[in-house]
Amino acid sequence: MAGTDHGQDSGWDGPTPAFILVRPQMGENIGAAARAMLNFGCDRMRLVAPRDGWPNSAAVATASGAARVLDHVQVSDTVEEATGDLNYVFATTARDRDLTKPVMTPERAMQHARELTAAGQKVGIMFGPERAGLENSDIVRANALVSVPVNPAFASLNLAQCVLLTAYEWRRSGDDTAPEVMEMAKTRFAEAIELQKLLEGLEARLDAVGFFFPEHKRDSMVENLRNMVSRMNLTEADVRTLHGVFRALAEKRKGFK
Amino acid sequence: MAGTDHGQDSGWDGPTPAFILVRPQMGENIGAAARAMLNFGCDRMRLVAPRDGWPNSAAVATASGAARVLDHVQVSDTVEEATGDLNYVFATTARDRDLTKPVMTPERAMQHARELTAAGQKVGIMFGPERAGLENSDIVRANALVSVPVNPAFASLNLAQCVLLTAYEWRRSGDDTAPEVMEMAKTRFAEAIELQKLLEGLEARLDAVGFFFPEHKRDSMVENLRNMVSRMNLTEADVRTLHGVFRALAEKRKGFK
Repeated sequence: MAGTDHGQDSGWDGPTPAFILVRPQMGENIGAAARAMLNFGCDRMRLVAPRDGWPNSAAVATASGAARVLDHVQVSDTVEEATGDLNYVFATTARDRDLTKPVMTPERAMQHARELTAAGQKVGIMFGPERAGLENSDIVRANALVSVPVNPAFASLNLAQCVLLTAYEWRRSGDDTAPEVMEMAKTRFAEAIELQKLLEGLEARLDAVGFFFPEHKRDSMVENLRNMVSRMNLTEADVRTLHGVFRALAEKRKGFK
Repeated sequence: MAGTDHGQDSGWDGPTPAFILVRPQMGENIGAAARAMLNFGCDRMRLVAPRDGWPNSAAVATASGAARVLDHVQVSDTVEEATGDLNYVFATTARDRDLTKPVMTPERAMQHARELTAAGQKVGIMFGPERAGLENSDIVRANALVSVPVNPAFASLNLAQCVLLTAYEWRRSGDDTAPEVMEMAKTRFAEAIELQKLLEGLEARLDAVGFFFPEHKRDSMVENLRNMVSRMNLTEADVRTLHGVFRALAEKRKGFK
C-alpha cells in the first residue's frame, strides 16, 4: 500500500467494508464522504490518486467531526494497489455497462457484503470520480457492480450521496440479529493481488504464443480475461491450481522446443 | 393553501408524497432537497415559512435540472396550513422525543406511505429546519415519526441527506418489479454439458503434458478441477474464451514438436 506515511490503519480489525474513492477531485467531497460513512458507522476509507494530493486541508475542514476517518485513510496510486488485499470488490456505477458482471441494488450488495464479511472476507466498494465515474479498466477488477435505482429522467447523485446510500444500506443489512453463515466459511478466498499475478502470468504466457491477435484487439482481450477472472470469486487454492494448469500447458511446450 | 400565487400544483394527481420543508433556512438546501427528491421520482415539495422568502434564487440555482420541482412548490405560513389537506403526516426527527407516537425506520415509514397512497390517502413527510429540527409543536401534528438509524456517536445528516434517504426508501417501497439482483440480464450462462466438454478438453491436454502426477492422485485432481469450474458460474462466452486460452497455451507446443 503506497502512502503508508499518512497514518493508515495497516490491519483489518473491524467488520466494515473499505470505501474506496477512486481519483476523487474535490477535497470537500472526500470530507463529505467521510461524514456520510461515519453516519452509518463505516470508518475505513481508501483513496486512489486523489487529484489534489494528500493530506488535503479542504477534506479535513469538511469532514469536521468525521476527521478520524481521514486520519486512518489509506492512499494508493492505483486501483490495483488499493484493492490488492481485498477478497471481494464492488464497483458503483450509474450507467449500464456492457460488461458481463452481476449488477446489484445497494440493498442486495450490502447484504452480500455483510455475508462475506461475516465469513471473514475483506470487502471493498469503489466509487468513481465526480462526474466521470469509474472507468471500465477499474470496473473489470470488481466482482460485482452496484447501481442505485435512480429516476432515469433525473439521475444526479453526487459522490457523497452515493457513499451515503451505500453506508446506509450497510447499516441496514446489519439490523438482522444473526448473520448468515456462509458455505465455504473456512475457505480463504483469493486477494485481488493474487488474481492480478495470475492474470499477469497468463498474459505473458499467451503473449508468448501470439494469442492476442490482432494487436489492436489486445487491450479488450486482456480486459475480457480480467473481467472473467474477477467475477469467478476464486479461492486461494483455485489460484494455485490455475497457476499449475497454465504452467503445465505452456511450459511443456518449451520442453519440446 | 397560502402562497397560491407561486405557481403551485393545486391538485393532488400523482402517487408521490409531499415533502414538506418546515422553516428551511438556506436556499441552497431547498435546491439540494429538490434534487434529492427528483432522483427518486418525488416532485411534490411544500415549504413552510422559508426564512429567506420565496422565490429564492439560490434555491433555483442549486436545484438546476430539478427546477421543475421548485416551479410547483406550495408555500405556506404554517405547518397547519401546509398539512391541512393531508390524510397522514410523518415527521422526521433525529432525536428521541418524549412523545407517545409511533417511531418508524424510513423503510417501514415509506412502505406504510405506499400502502396509504395506494388506498387513496394523501401523505406528507415533514423535515425540520437545518440544525434545530422540528419543534414539538410541529411534531404533535404528525401521525408518526420517522427516525434514520444513524450512528449514535456521529449523527450529522443534513436536510438534503435526510430528504434523499426518505425519497430513496419511497422509491424502494414501490420497487416490486425490479429484481434485487439484475443478474447480467442478457447473459447466457453455460450449460453443464458445455462445462463438461471444457473439462474433458482440458483434461486431455493436461494428460498430454503429464500434469496428473502421481497417478494415484489423478482422480482427486480431476475432481478438484471440476469443482472449481462448476463453482465459477461461467457464461457461454467464458467457456469459449477458456477453450481458446487452453488451446493457445497447448497447441503452440505441438507446433514446436
